[in-house]
Amino acid sequence: MYVVIEGIDTAGKSTQLDILNKNHSDAIFTKEPGGTEIGTRLRSMVLNGEAKSKVAEMFLFLADRAEHMEEIVKPNLDKMVISDRSLISGIAYASSMPIEIVTSLNLIATQNTLPTHVVLLELSEKELKYRLSQKENDSIEARGIDYLLDIQNRLKQTVKLLNLNHLFVDASLSIEEISKQIEEFINE
Amino acid sequence: MYVVIEGIDTAGKSTQLDILNKNHSDAIFTKEPGGTEIGTRLRSMVLNGEAKSKVAEMFLFLADRAEHMEEIVKPNLDKMVISDRSLISGIAYASSMPIEIVTSLNLIATQNTLPTHVVLLELSEKELKYRLSQKENDSIEARGIDYLLDIQNRLKQTVKLLNLNHLFVDASLSIEEISKQIEEFINE
Repeated sequence: MYVVIEGIDTAGKSTQLDILNKNHSDAIFTKEPGGTEIGTRLRSMVLNGEAKSKVAEMFLFLADRAEHMEEIVKPNLDKMVISDRSLISGIAYASSMPIEIVTSLNLIATQNTLPTHVVLLELSEKELKYRLSQKENDSIEARGIDYLLDIQNRLKQTVKLLNLNHLFVDASLSIEEISKQIEEFINE
Repeated sequence: MYVVIEGIDTAGKSTQLDILNKNHSDAIFTKEPGGTEIGTRLRSMVLNGEAKSKVAEMFLFLADRAEHMEEIVKPNLDKMVISDRSLISGIAYASSMPIEIVTSLNLIATQNTLPTHVVLLELSEKELKYRLSQKENDSIEARGIDYLLDIQNRLKQTVKLLNLNHLFVDASLSIEEISKQIEEFINE
């Protein structure tokens, strides 16, 4: 079982992952990028802007994903793997390239292993504006509301394109209500 | 002008690159993998076996290639760029994947910029056996003669598949004769 939690920044992924962590002590919790040793280094190369080429950055994330799949996800598929992000984010955030090409590249990276359960925390424009106004902007958030809404659209598009078993949750619901919906979805 | 020197180990690339270096002091000499700062680190990650996944290794080499293209090759195409290896090696050595897929990935990495001149130093089986017997084997050479001959075939196949302007030289000729043929080819 391979559960992934997706959503743009401020959607509340961390809060729900904390709750899942308490409720599923036997699950393997992991993340992309940076879920492996080499992945941590690749992630920091990208965040520090060490690659000048956007295409190189994309391949570094794909290397991270391929390694994460091989080392963490695949060996634990008989248990419950819960991952903070997945190829869905990989595809959605690589917005400078056509979605079909990026999807093919990501399927090579994951060797066609796909999430069995996708939870996407979804924000309305109004709620996103409010949440961003409450916190200091980091580099991605600074790109603005339109950028984040576009990414959110690409996240949803990707889930549908890959025909994945999914739950789109309204992220403005209460923490408890969201958690309840997630538990029902992964236990159904 | 983008000249690349290709050939399996022991074919004599380094010797010819040294001669080219003396004859073309105004050219930009570079290499793949490891021709950029980040590329040096990616190359050593792969050589140290830090990635467990073969697919991750391939993506690390593609990231190196994309960065090399963007930082070194493209900005200098108005001069003479001479590179020790290129996407041709990248395609030939990724022998665990179909050549068509690896080719597409490499064309994404190079953003379709292709060598204007390919020099491939070619060894006969007999000459390769002799040369390997004269030196200590490193990890790639230890995989054996059949492996190296297969890579050499894939190098040639790739040059033809990409329809590149090329010179295949018999690497058992004298150093001077090979050098003469290379000079004629790149000056024609």
